[in-house]
Amino acid sequence: MAQQERAVRTRNALIESAAELFSKDGFDVVSLSTISNRAGVSNGALHFHFASKAALTAAVWEAAAQRLRQITHEGAARGQAAGSGGALQVLVDTTHALLRGLRHDVILRAGFDLSESPVPVAPGADLRRRWQAWVESLLVQAAREGALARDVAPQDAAHAVVAATIGFGALGSRNAQWLSQSMLTRFWALLLPRLAAEPALKELVASGRRREGVPVPEAASPLHRPVTRQSA
Amino acid sequence: MAQQERAVRTRNALIESAAELFSKDGFDVVSLSTISNRAGVSNGALHFHFASKAALTAAVWEAAAQRLRQITHEGAARGQAAGSGGALQVLVDTTHALLRGLRHDVILRAGFDLSESPVPVAPGADLRRRWQAWVESLLVQAAREGALARDVAPQDAAHAVVAATIGFGALGSRNAQWLSQSMLTRFWALLLPRLAAEPALKELVASGRRREGVPVPEAASPLHRPVTRQSA
Repeated sequence: MAQQERAVRTRNALIESAAELFSKDGFDVVSLSTISNRAGVSNGALHFHFASKAALTAAVWEAAAQRLRQITHEGAARGQAAGSGGALQVLVDTTHALLRGLRHDVILRAGFDLSESPVPVAPGADLRRRWQAWVESLLVQAAREGALARDVAPQDAAHAVVAATIGFGALGSRNAQWLSQSMLTRFWALLLPRLAAEPALKELVASGRRREGVPVPEAASPLHRPVTRQSA
Repeated sequence: MAQQERAVRTRNALIESAAELFSKDGFDVVSLSTISNRAGVSNGALHFHFASKAALTAAVWEAAAQRLRQITHEGAARGQAAGSGGALQVLVDTTHALLRGLRHDVILRAGFDLSESPVPVAPGADLRRRWQAWVESLLVQAAREGALARDVAPQDAAHAVVAATIGFGALGSRNAQWLSQSMLTRFWALLLPRLAAEPALKELVASGRRREGVPVPEAASPLHRPVTRQSA
């Protein structure tokens, strides 16, 4: 049992080291021995867990996909719990969670980087596609709720949000400013008055609602208000 | 003289082959001999022109920077010539020119890819930074012209436009749909009613004005109108 636990830890350490090195030096130049070195693990142990660099890369990608699932599922669950703001607020919250993830979680970052690489990890292994599908489903739901402005097509709104968030992520890999909460808050403060129907707009918090139901103080946009007035 | 011309041609062929291979296979894995092979040039000739892969990469980047300068300068020149729509229309036109460039011009694409790579080509060699500076200057100018909505800060608008265009470019490297004129037209049709002051909005063509002064037929957005009514 202790041995099994140790094996899981070693495996995770290898995935994390690989993700860090991929992000820092680029996927193609990193060698397996650099990765095992950084993880404090022998080459033999690495090969016990991963038969090849491709297998390790696939594991990094799978771990990143798991993080993305967690981010989107949490967003949806919180949306149902809070009961206010609807799908559009869930979308805002989830974009904040995504950029927070890209800022702090090297595995998530590596997963998106791998989605960009010319040679895909595996067929269909594209986190950006999954993100796009999620954003589209939320905007279709927002339209059903009557929360979208009448002259806004959910598809067009989804493309704009996907392009912008992928852009924030790409720009953020060189300059973390692009992943900051205030940057994304100003983006939503700009876009929401165009996307949202008038009554829905008043309820929306551009800075996002955190898990605790309290917005984060960093932002000071006109759309930033304590969510407690609406929910809880 | 003929010899000099041949030398220039060889150099350009090497830059183009390098850009193609960087885009297709990723910068790090491409070898110098693969590049010279593709260009139909001997290894010796490659080394005559470029002392190292770094030198060749820098040349690709410099060629891409030149293309970007051309795109932005043409946009500005046309804007002054047309005299209508102002800086905001020049911005719309130039984003269309940029995505067209990313669609068709492998050197421009490679230049932006190199800006994303973890190890920069040279200090300050970041096309995305240059693009950002250009977008910001146009939106400041639009604000001076009174063409921006009063509650829109040029800086916020610039960040949204830069993030979205970089996102279109990143997504387009895997799926050319993201670089299509109709995709960008719908983006502008969504965003312009939020950005532009009421009188300016009526003049704007979301699908962009081509050099001939005739908008391209592909798009059918509510903001797509023959520009000849306003200008010329």
